[in-house]
Amino acid sequence: MKALDKVITLFRRFPGVGPKQAERFALYVVKTPAIQIEELVEALRGVKNSVGYCRECCNYADGELCEICSDHSRDRFVICVVSQTQDVAAIEKAKTFNGVYHVLHGVISPMDGINSEGLKLKELVERVRRADGAVTELIIATNPDTEGETTAIYLTGLLKDYVAGITRIACGVPLGGDIDYMDEVTLGHALKGRTKV
Amino acid sequence: MKALDKVITLFRRFPGVGPKQAERFALYVVKTPAIQIEELVEALRGVKNSVGYCRECCNYADGELCEICSDHSRDRFVICVVSQTQDVAAIEKAKTFNGVYHVLHGVISPMDGINSEGLKLKELVERVRRADGAVTELIIATNPDTEGETTAIYLTGLLKDYVAGITRIACGVPLGGDIDYMDEVTLGHALKGRTKV
Repeated sequence: MKALDKVITLFRRFPGVGPKQAERFALYVVKTPAIQIEELVEALRGVKNSVGYCRECCNYADGELCEICSDHSRDRFVICVVSQTQDVAAIEKAKTFNGVYHVLHGVISPMDGINSEGLKLKELVERVRRADGAVTELIIATNPDTEGETTAIYLTGLLKDYVAGITRIACGVPLGGDIDYMDEVTLGHALKGRTKV
Repeated sequence: MKALDKVITLFRRFPGVGPKQAERFALYVVKTPAIQIEELVEALRGVKNSVGYCRECCNYADGELCEICSDHSRDRFVICVVSQTQDVAAIEKAKTFNGVYHVLHGVISPMDGINSEGLKLKELVERVRRADGAVTELIIATNPDTEGETTAIYLTGLLKDYVAGITRIACGVPLGGDIDYMDEVTLGHALKGRTKV
């Protein structure tokens, strides 16, 4: 069936979707009432029509500014740099951060051919410069892996003249983690980063 | 963001999609060029506009008849009864069956409140009756689990007066399977269904 095959091909392009799941999605479309599929169609178009980058933090936003950047109760001089949109939501869930974010939309990964060009780095430098020394802290919250560390080091070099306090999130044993099963690098970091009780 | 949240909610309704995956799908929509999303929109509408049930076998079809039922080289008096569309594709891949199918779109599952009413059983009975004794074999290929077996027994009772040869697919140790790890019921079936070498 042409119509079904076409939609299967397009679902295959979705992240992490294999042939079986794409088939299940297509059959879901067949079984679902037309009115609900029309609702999905409208929602998809709605995203394409309204979602762009936030002028400040480069996160995805409905308007000029995202919800966090337009919230005046947030400290806009404490910037947490993350590699992707999802990380903002993850940190927000922790409910301990009251600053703002900057989304890079990627990490420096020479292996995958992503250098600093593709990222929202220029925007971050400009943002920090524009603040003219007012940024009190810049927390680099990229993943503690090769690409994340490379990006963190690169960022530090780029911004150390503009921001006095550049910090990096702690690397250690996660809650519920088993020391016995931790890799030695994480344990090394956990020991080095120990805090007084 | 309203637009993004809306699309996440709708993706959550897809089979087997959790909150994380729905979020990834929504971000995929944000990142993908509008023209590709428009292609998806058209494909979704295409499915809703053109796909219905095959008049003969109740499988999904673009037109009146599905590809298999309109293929004159297939033996239309050997009917393989399956519970869902995906099973047709799976059996077709085996390339050993040259008959036609009948898709029930479900199994009898009193626990889930699905009785014989919701299934395409009436259509099967009518189809077999219409053939007026010409159906030589009816292979029941529902899964060898409680619901599948219940459905098979029910079907047999319903059709034994119209079809001489009602058969059930073999239950046994799958290729590459480990006898050591097989459950006793499967092993019992494998022994009972042994064939001469």
